[in-house]
Amino acid sequence: MTGNPQMHKLSHSEIKAQRKTIDEAISSARTPIYGFLENVRSLYNVGSIFRTSDAALVSGLYLTGFTPYPPRPEISKTALGAVESVPWHYNRKSIDAVAEIKEKGIRFIVLEQTKESVPVWDLSQDIFPACIAVGNEIGGITKEIVEAADLAVEIPMLGVKHSLNVAVAYGIAIYRLFEIFSKSGPQHKP
Amino acid sequence: MTGNPQMHKLSHSEIKAQRKTIDEAISSARTPIYGFLENVRSLYNVGSIFRTSDAALVSGLYLTGFTPYPPRPEISKTALGAVESVPWHYNRKSIDAVAEIKEKGIRFIVLEQTKESVPVWDLSQDIFPACIAVGNEIGGITKEIVEAADLAVEIPMLGVKHSLNVAVAYGIAIYRLFEIFSKSGPQHKP
Repeated sequence: MTGNPQMHKLSHSEIKAQRKTIDEAISSARTPIYGFLENVRSLYNVGSIFRTSDAALVSGLYLTGFTPYPPRPEISKTALGAVESVPWHYNRKSIDAVAEIKEKGIRFIVLEQTKESVPVWDLSQDIFPACIAVGNEIGGITKEIVEAADLAVEIPMLGVKHSLNVAVAYGIAIYRLFEIFSKSGPQHKP
Repeated sequence: MTGNPQMHKLSHSEIKAQRKTIDEAISSARTPIYGFLENVRSLYNVGSIFRTSDAALVSGLYLTGFTPYPPRPEISKTALGAVESVPWHYNRKSIDAVAEIKEKGIRFIVLEQTKESVPVWDLSQDIFPACIAVGNEIGGITKEIVEAADLAVEIPMLGVKHSLNVAVAYGIAIYRLFEIFSKSGPQHKP
C-alpha cells in the first residue's frame, strides 16, 4: 500500500498555538455572518451549533422561541468553551429578533425547503451581512418566520430521507457562507 | 417589516413526493463519494453520519476500529432510516479497510489538521472517486491511518477552539465534495 510518509499530523500543542484566546476572539473582526435558531429543542444541537459558530467566527447567534440558552451544563459541555467566545442573544418572540436583524441591514435567510429555495452553494459575495436561520428538529422553521425571510436556501439532497440533523445542516450552510466570504477578500483568509 | 409573501414552505407530503424509496436509493447510480469512520465512539454521531451519507447518496460507508455499527437502536433512531439505504461495511482493522479502498482505485483522504492539509474547498473535479475519513471525537484519526492517506484536507477555522463536532465536520466535507461532483456533470444535479 502506498502512503504519504511526509504526512505529519499536528499535535494538540501545535493546534493550540494557532487558536485565538477568548479575549482575542471577542475583540477580533468577526465574519459578517449570523446564526439564528428558532425552537431548536436539543441542548446538544445548540452546543454543537455554538462550536461551529466559534469556528466560523460568526458575529452573533440569535436564540429564539423555546431554544434553550446558556448557562446550561449540557450546552457548555458540547460547545467546548464556545459559549464564552460567541456573542449570543435570546428573544422569546422569534419575529422580534427577525425585526431587529432586518433593522440592522442584515439579510435574513431561512434554511428551509420551499418552492423558492435556491441551493446554498449558489449564494454570492454580495449576500453579506447575512443571517442563516434553522428551525426545530421535527417541524423546521415556522410559517411566520419563513414568510418574513428575505430569501430561502436549501441543501440539495438525494437519498431516501431528504433531511439532515439540524446541527449538521447549520454547519454545512454556515461553512458555505464562510467560504464565500473568505474568498471575497484578503481580510479573513484563514 | 418587509417579508416575502410568496415564500411557501413545502409540506411533509410535498417533501416526501421528492424522496426516493429505499429500493430506488439502493439501485440508484450513487455519487463516487465514500465515507470512512475510524474509532468514532458516539452512537449518535454514527447515526447522524448515516443520515448525511443518505442525503448525499454516498456509494458506501466504511466503519472501522471501535466505531459502533448496525444494528444498534441508538444508531437507527438518529439515522432515521438511513441505515437501510446506505451501503456500509465494518472492518475491525482500519488499515485493512484503507488497503481495500486503495485497491479499488478510490482516493483515500483524511480530514485532519496536518502540516500538508489543504482546505476541503480547494478540491477539484478530478478527485473522484474519493473517500473522506474522520476519526475519534477526542484524538482524531490515528497516525497510522494519516500516514496511509493519499491526501489530507482540513476545514479552515478561526475562533478559540479549532475543532468541530465530528458529525458536523463530516457533513461539511462530504457536502463540499457532493457540490463539486454535482457541478461536474449533468448526471447528479439534484
